Amino acid sequence: MSYYFTKSRVETFSDGIFAIIITLLILEIKVPHIELSESISELSEDLLHLAPKFIAWVISFLSVAVIWVNHHRIFESLKHINHAVFWLNANLLLWVSFIPFPTALMGDYPNNKLAVSFFGLSSLMMGIAFLIFRFYMWKRPEITNDLSDEYLRRGVWNVLLFGPTLYLFGTATAWIHPYIAFAFYALVTIYFIFPQTAASQKTEE
Amino acid sequence: MSYYFTKSRVETFSDGIFAIIITLLILEIKVPHIELSESISELSEDLLHLAPKFIAWVISFLSVAVIWVNHHRIFESLKHINHAVFWLNANLLLWVSFIPFPTALMGDYPNNKLAVSFFGLSSLMMGIAFLIFRFYMWKRPEITNDLSDEYLRRGVWNVLLFGPTLYLFGTATAWIHPYIAFAFYALVTIYFIFPQTAASQKTEE
Amino acid sequence: MSYYFTKSRVETFSDGIFAIIITLLILEIKVPHIELSESISELSEDLLHLAPKFIAWVISFLSVAVIWVNHHRIFESLKHINHAVFWLNANLLLWVSFIPFPTALMGDYPNNKLAVSFFGLSSLMMGIAFLIFRFYMWKRPEITNDLSDEYLRRGVWNVLLFGPTLYLFGTATAWIHPYIAFAFYALVTIYFIFPQTAASQKTEE
Amino acid sequence: MSYYFTKSRVETFSDGIFAIIITLLILEIKVPHIELSESISELSEDLLHLAPKFIAWVISFLSVAVIWVNHHRIFESLKHINHAVFWLNANLLLWVSFIPFPTALMGDYPNNKLAVSFFGLSSLMMGIAFLIFRFYMWKRPEITNDLSDEYLRRGVWNVLLFGPTLYLFGTATAWIHPYIAFAFYALVTIYFIFPQTAASQKTEE
Repeated sequence: MSYYFTKSRVETFSDGIFAIIITLLILEIKVPHIELSESISELSEDLLHLAPKFIAWVISFLSVAVIWVNHHRIFESLKHINHAVFWLNANLLLWVSFIPFPTALMGDYPNNKLAVSFFGLSSLMMGIAFLIFRFYMWKRPEITNDLSDEYLRRGVWNVLLFGPTLYLFGTATAWIHPYIAFAFYALVTIYFIFPQTAASQKTEE
Repeated sequence: MSYYFTKSRVETFSDGIFAIIITLLILEIKVPHIELSESISELSEDLLHLAPKFIAWVISFLSVAVIWVNHHRIFESLKHINHAVFWLNANLLLWVSFIPFPTALMGDYPNNKLAVSFFGLSSLMMGIAFLIFRFYMWKRPEITNDLSDEYLRRGVWNVLLFGPTLYLFGTATAWIHPYIAFAFYALVTIYFIFPQTAASQKTEE
Repeated sequence: MSYYFTKSRVETFSDGIFAIIITLLILEIKVPHIELSESISELSEDLLHLAPKFIAWVISFLSVAVIWVNHHRIFESLKHINHAVFWLNANLLLWVSFIPFPTALMGDYPNNKLAVSFFGLSSLMMGIAFLIFRFYMWKRPEITNDLSDEYLRRGVWNVLLFGPTLYLFGTATAWIHPYIAFAFYALVTIYFIFPQTAASQKTEE
Repeated sequence: MSYYFTKSRVETFSDGIFAIIITLLILEIKVPHIELSESISELSEDLLHLAPKFIAWVISFLSVAVIWVNHHRIFESLKHINHAVFWLNANLLLWVSFIPFPTALMGDYPNNKLAVSFFGLSSLMMGIAFLIFRFYMWKRPEITNDLSDEYLRRGVWNVLLFGPTLYLFGTATAWIHPYIAFAFYALVTIYFIFPQTAASQKTEE
């Protein structure tokens, strides 16, 4: 029996799941049915009603892209993929593959507090999956590319602060008003896209 | 004419199928339709009714991950992929790609003995596909990475004991009570995730 | 501007399409809706009614696997992928990605002559796409791995005989009786799985 | 923190998305429901009514293939994938993954000016995503494979002329007559398939 997995195959498998999830999201938005097939006013009205769904779709698309970036960063740090890492990754992918359901729920009922909170809860579970993964890497530095204890600990803290914590706020504030939760969900994505990109750009120069 | 297939392409093709199957499972769970779009009680009740579907989804997700691990282990042992191996692999993938149907059936009718037994039967066919694959490798050791007869024979026995046998028990006991079958289906998955991971962890140390 | 495509990326793209098509086929088979959720007689009857759909699914699954094998064989012979080859490949993939539609049509109406003939017609188009591809390779041997004129010409003939010709018979005989067409569609698949595998096995020894 | 992404993983992820989108397009075309399951006249009539959907499908399939070719060309020119390039690519993929929606809309309402114009608008957004990408490469030549300013500037102009401009014409002329827009959408695809292939063939010789 071999103790390690071929890294490239685990990556291909994971990338496949990411690619499918990010692509399936659009399928939840159905073409509206109009009575008069040439009516512009009827169709434009129906398209406008789909606006919350389009917004939910963009948020989810960017969220999955952000998750991919973090997944990529973790795998770049890994030297070996043992059984434990494989299942920590599978746990993460389980929550990633769940995303279409809460996205559709939130898109269908954007004013329902439970629906919006549910999206946060499932994102929170996904964030916790990242946290456990990072924590395991910190405790087993020998499976990483000789990374320092300092670097690995910072990885745990970063995930904790910008993942689970923000999603927890979203899950909770949805009960005050769904739009506050939307803001928190968008914030996670914006944080990972803009300041992080700016920071990496700077160091690059 | 070439007699062997490019291993990496067969792996990419197989990994693609695994990734799609594992991701599609969630699509079987539809967002509930509620009358009052802001009603929390109505939505929470409907979400609770989906519980058996969520459980069926988690079992199937982990089952596919377990199948992937075993598939990875087989391909790691193979040196050459000839036509026979390709079609043994295709037979396995046929049963893997069938999984969404029995999963949805079991999720829709968790108290229907036939539905729960059907899930076991289709998993049994998948297990037999693994068994034939392992048996062929044992009889044709020259296509493997110089593995010993002892190692290859043990591979056949392991698959037999923890795959088809347990699924056969599930298929049969579903007729006594569906929940006994659920236990067997969960057992296969738990066996491959926990003790196997613990064992490999130990040897690793 | 570069004149050649990166072969590995065209392969990944093609393999992705094959993996998706072969996996999506099962989604066309919907879980039957039964009135009494615990009724075994009702469910077993409904599952039996799905038999033609299961048969159509197996035929299509194996057909896609056979197409993959032939696609693999062509790409193994290619040294360079120029623009013409890319579009010949895209034409082939267009017909491959069409398969779920005629499969569902034939599964829904197995006794409708037009439905069964339509499956043959679309397979015929796919076979012709292979034929044009092989013909181009024969006329431009410099893009292949230094293959002989004899070898390339035989490739054209093999495709012609066992692809378009058999599908043409199926398309035509469906109008006499759908089951004769089924036999022809199954024949293409059986030819590529069994005698070809046996032949390659023999040469291997 | 690393400043660059592993190019092969970004490519696998992107190729996965392209493969899924190009394959999902056919799923929008549903098998017609006929009353008399053996009726040839009823089925043939229903299949003929699907003609606009088949045409929309072919246009979209070829469009995605054309986008893939341009994506391939860009990635071939890139030496490094930094955070900015990753998100420029994600922006492009967002619009690519949106394609099934406007395709289904245009297929359902081919005579509705808004539906046909909407297809052009979403293609225009995708074209603009390419334009920004090319513009960034021109301004940051150090991330490319030492390409000349002249070459990179020409890349910007080519995209501008044959992407956004033609799609803008389509978006606008749909309001005169949908079929003029169809012609523009087909033109983009034809331009990239035929003259470009002919040109590259010529240089190759």
